Amino acid sequence: MTETAQARIVFTRGVPPPESFPTEEFAECLDAALKKDPSVILQYGQQPGYGPLREELAKEYGVDVSNILVGNGSLQLQDLISAYMIRPGGVVYTEQPSFDRAIKTFRRRGARAVGIPLDDDGVNVERLREAVEAEKPAFVYLVPDFQNPAGATLSLEKRRQVVELAEEKDFWVIEDIPYRKLRYAGEDLPLLREISPNRVITMSSFSKLLSPGIRVGFVIAPEELIKAVTSLGEDTYLSPVLPTQAAVAEYLRRDWLAPNIERLKEVYRPRWEAMANAVRREFSGAQLFVPDGGFFVSMMLPEDAHTDNLVGRAKDQDLVLTPGAAFFPDPMTGEEVSGDRFVRLPFCAVPPEQIDEGVKRLASLV
Amino acid sequence: MTETAQARIVFTRGVPPPESFPTEEFAECLDAALKKDPSVILQYGQQPGYGPLREELAKEYGVDVSNILVGNGSLQLQDLISAYMIRPGGVVYTEQPSFDRAIKTFRRRGARAVGIPLDDDGVNVERLREAVEAEKPAFVYLVPDFQNPAGATLSLEKRRQVVELAEEKDFWVIEDIPYRKLRYAGEDLPLLREISPNRVITMSSFSKLLSPGIRVGFVIAPEELIKAVTSLGEDTYLSPVLPTQAAVAEYLRRDWLAPNIERLKEVYRPRWEAMANAVRREFSGAQLFVPDGGFFVSMMLPEDAHTDNLVGRAKDQDLVLTPGAAFFPDPMTGEEVSGDRFVRLPFCAVPPEQIDEGVKRLASLV
Repeated sequence: MTETAQARIVFTRGVPPPESFPTEEFAECLDAALKKDPSVILQYGQQPGYGPLREELAKEYGVDVSNILVGNGSLQLQDLISAYMIRPGGVVYTEQPSFDRAIKTFRRRGARAVGIPLDDDGVNVERLREAVEAEKPAFVYLVPDFQNPAGATLSLEKRRQVVELAEEKDFWVIEDIPYRKLRYAGEDLPLLREISPNRVITMSSFSKLLSPGIRVGFVIAPEELIKAVTSLGEDTYLSPVLPTQAAVAEYLRRDWLAPNIERLKEVYRPRWEAMANAVRREFSGAQLFVPDGGFFVSMMLPEDAHTDNLVGRAKDQDLVLTPGAAFFPDPMTGEEVSGDRFVRLPFCAVPPEQIDEGVKRLASLV
Repeated sequence: MTETAQARIVFTRGVPPPESFPTEEFAECLDAALKKDPSVILQYGQQPGYGPLREELAKEYGVDVSNILVGNGSLQLQDLISAYMIRPGGVVYTEQPSFDRAIKTFRRRGARAVGIPLDDDGVNVERLREAVEAEKPAFVYLVPDFQNPAGATLSLEKRRQVVELAEEKDFWVIEDIPYRKLRYAGEDLPLLREISPNRVITMSSFSKLLSPGIRVGFVIAPEELIKAVTSLGEDTYLSPVLPTQAAVAEYLRRDWLAPNIERLKEVYRPRWEAMANAVRREFSGAQLFVPDGGFFVSMMLPEDAHTDNLVGRAKDQDLVLTPGAAFFPDPMTGEEVSGDRFVRLPFCAVPPEQIDEGVKRLASLV
């Protein structure tokens, strides 16, 4: 027994809290969808995803249905896209830091994953240009809105530069946008695809907007790529799980998504404010990433911060952190990797008072 | 326009007919499950599958929950097991013929897929012994009950021999049993696992008993293998789709599966009888596989049968067949591959009068 019992505070996974799930509404859609179209939903088939859901997404993104593939969550789709696009020994560029599971997936499929430094306003485009000129990648993987793990958002100017560079140098950019619709302040910036779709693959999912357990993710890309990846998907899982896709289609058809997102923002905004205030107060000497949306605030601690065994020492104080190094792919030549000084602070599932207390505990450790 | 309009008859995929789906009951279970446990079902997690479903399966098969992995359909699980067990250039033995998608999966994961001749009473065990002695496989893949595509069932004596051989020679046997519970005559034979579980991996799914579109398949294996494959699954799809797994758990908990299987047998038995009678009448000179259950009757046509472009000529007669060769992996050295003479005849989704007419049309072509 420790002498003071203090609440355990968890700053690890970017997982939505249970109160975010629209259970009753989703159950209603699942039931309605199943009864409306059982001979399709309960059957094999629909390899590129459930037709009416593809239609809803095609309408929203202004593309043809043939440009849409819906699968069992976006990690599964990242895996299939990687299997299709990566040749063994090839390179994939990501932001530095980037989504740990994506880095792992690219490596498992045979790529070297190399990080391009991330500035406050998104990936460093000059460094990206140098990297692409040195070696053309299988693709460049970016999370332009409220990036995981850093929280950075790619500026409009840099969006234009990235798209121009991709067209000039003839490489693919994956824009992964699961957090995009969770904006608590400011205005939306255009998708890379909206600037010019020629070299852009867009990915997203309903994990952050409805539920992760339903595993509904999607890709928007040229038809040829969709066909090839669909065929790999068919070889891997035969057909996707259809009842949950059909429920999402019904949810969208009823126009229930926008009000649900408003409800989520009401849950997350006070947590975001609490985290932003706490890190600004406690970590004025760190490089802070405080985005206008999403799930994460992050910071790069000063070089003289006491970061040895930070995760272990935090645990002793009932504070659960993710080791920063997991988000760091290989560095570009000569680049310093500062993973040990990087701290990701997911706020979405933590009540405001715990956020404040957790950041104080963290400050006392470094 | 052809002068006589005749109905198109489809003898291709082993797909259950829409009338087989227990839509109302399944919808009720889906709704009940979702409302009972939303914070688990709608969330990330449960990587080895939904807990209560694993518990139901563990109870049924007399194993510990740690021996069960439930994933997004059994092809996905075959892919993960293959990724884990196959070393590039290694060999997997299957029955000759075998399930076409399984063969493709083993090859995609780097194996040579080599077929062991299939007799009326299942795989030829002497040939299997020779093969294993010549080269130890990553695993042996068998469909012991009402095999896909041939329909053959492994006899009790051979089940014992296969299990003994696996233990003697120290190799893994995958028994894939999706059709096992659809028995229209005779008595169940023991699972390989029931004879001795040490070297047996059991796989099955609810695709043939409830619905394929829900994609709920499972593996029963030693805990170490379950853990490794679960971890590969987590890397690939993060967590499985949970609402459909939870609905199956509820369906099992309510004891609704056994009556549903009885209902399915009432649908399929007349089709099975019609197919058995038709092939016995029309193809007395062929080697027939008429099983006591499942989805398929099959036959090996006589060597002098007219099989050139059989699939194309059948199509001209509005009869849709699967090319037999797709079910044939590489032969053992010196073995004749008779894929062109092999015809799979799925009966489950075809009304009896069409079955009779279809087999007559087929007989007129060879």
